Amino acid sequence: MGIAIISPSRSTEIWEKEIIGIDNQIDIQVYPDIERFEDVTVVLLWNHPKGYLTKFPNLKLVCSMGAGVDHILADETIPENLPITRIVDPKLTFSMSNFVIMGVLNYHRQWTRYQMQQLERKWDMSKPEIPVHVGVLGVGELGGDLINKLQALGLEVSGYGNSPKNGLSYSYYYGDQLQDFLNQCNLIVCLLPLTSHTTKFLNKAFFQKCKAGTYLINVARGKHLEEKDLVEALDKGLLSGALLDVFSEEPLPEDHPFWSHEKIQVTPHIASVTNPKAAVPQIVKNYHNILNQQPLINQIDRKRGY
Amino acid sequence: MGIAIISPSRSTEIWEKEIIGIDNQIDIQVYPDIERFEDVTVVLLWNHPKGYLTKFPNLKLVCSMGAGVDHILADETIPENLPITRIVDPKLTFSMSNFVIMGVLNYHRQWTRYQMQQLERKWDMSKPEIPVHVGVLGVGELGGDLINKLQALGLEVSGYGNSPKNGLSYSYYYGDQLQDFLNQCNLIVCLLPLTSHTTKFLNKAFFQKCKAGTYLINVARGKHLEEKDLVEALDKGLLSGALLDVFSEEPLPEDHPFWSHEKIQVTPHIASVTNPKAAVPQIVKNYHNILNQQPLINQIDRKRGY
Repeated sequence: MGIAIISPSRSTEIWEKEIIGIDNQIDIQVYPDIERFEDVTVVLLWNHPKGYLTKFPNLKLVCSMGAGVDHILADETIPENLPITRIVDPKLTFSMSNFVIMGVLNYHRQWTRYQMQQLERKWDMSKPEIPVHVGVLGVGELGGDLINKLQALGLEVSGYGNSPKNGLSYSYYYGDQLQDFLNQCNLIVCLLPLTSHTTKFLNKAFFQKCKAGTYLINVARGKHLEEKDLVEALDKGLLSGALLDVFSEEPLPEDHPFWSHEKIQVTPHIASVTNPKAAVPQIVKNYHNILNQQPLINQIDRKRGY
Repeated sequence: MGIAIISPSRSTEIWEKEIIGIDNQIDIQVYPDIERFEDVTVVLLWNHPKGYLTKFPNLKLVCSMGAGVDHILADETIPENLPITRIVDPKLTFSMSNFVIMGVLNYHRQWTRYQMQQLERKWDMSKPEIPVHVGVLGVGELGGDLINKLQALGLEVSGYGNSPKNGLSYSYYYGDQLQDFLNQCNLIVCLLPLTSHTTKFLNKAFFQKCKAGTYLINVARGKHLEEKDLVEALDKGLLSGALLDVFSEEPLPEDHPFWSHEKIQVTPHIASVTNPKAAVPQIVKNYHNILNQQPLINQIDRKRGY
């Protein structure tokens, strides 16, 4: 019985400390110094080496260290019957929504243009607002919170997902209604989960369906976007600009064209970062739940992929 | 019976058109082509020439074309018993709150720093958020709306005004509790009305009371700020930066030091602009109310100054 933390690219000390702070009886082993594989019941993962979990003969639960589980589902060697959980963190939602709202308002209120005008000492009061109708792709935990907050600010908003939903306070589209959805919106926010269906969802065909001059914000995963298609859509004027926080390859390579594209704003995957203080209690709870055969919290549906 | 529009610095055509659209029986005269002074019951003003209203022998009501009335109260020749009204416009509130929230989030999420990092092709994920506690000076129509919206976004907020208030959802301070208020906050938004008490409210003594590194947003009136004291407070590090939309002299003179100060962000008085479509129905309603001796809407209290 114990937990293994496997996160080659991130510091894990704070995670270890937080687990011990809640339950100092838990046996913790940390990658790459794991030796007693048979003692591990639960693994806590972020970008683990593919195939590595086959080493654990008594594994009962796989926990993501973040809100996404695409890094886990990408490993086909993980048995189908192993449950997987993710983190639902109000602080993560707070950060994500406020980052996106910053991007929406900077576009709506023409912040970049006013900064240029300051450099030129130019006093131009004309057109201080671009009316926006925000379209949110993905209306789960994060998308739903964002939509509520955009509505609280008095902004127009529509949502798009993959299944029918009722009783929403905003216009909602799903499945093959994508064109109808895009016809309403001039600013698109991608908050989709990354699954086989949503990989490269933001591609040439998508951009051709957008209203001319649509602005794009991607804060989900870099793999949602076909990067060369975005550059083409911006250069052709199909889109007016983009704020990107996530990329196919991270860190974004120094010679990547996004860095210097005049219509692209780059941030280094900081829209929202999981806070171990909020995440660890969920993991410890699930550790005890799996041992005691109790229902898990924040378990994902492997068929849906989120 | 009729209305005179007096706004030397703004185009008045749209105002005239909107009034006629609602009531084409109203006799309208527009400055500087006013000849029948005795026919004017109501004046509609924005930065009128001081003393000019003494020409109207039958004046019964003075209407501001905007949310502020400081431009009217600054003219001591206007008789004390003449009622004054201002515009309360939901669109104006929408724009003001969203502009300020943009400024708050740009500070909170370090937008300017990330833009610099993009220019340097630098991927630095550290410290993506500065925790903010927003202090709102002035909790009237505009300040109250802003506070509600900041709370909806999950941000901490306190308010400061000049009189006691109960039953609020946020911590509120008034009168001589300014130091207690400032001790809570690291981002101050000025939304005070401009009165004799609030002129130069943001001065050296105020900045010395602020927590070190406080950020300032002024969207009220330029005369709330002692401009040279702000430069000194920024240069000494008492404040960390400022977003200014209003100035003592507008347009901001081309040789003004604010344009090029690295800690000051300038916008050309565009946080919120009165929309004649929302404003004119209030003015026509008050025109009829004053003729029919009915109570006025959005009348200000001259003693308080707002």
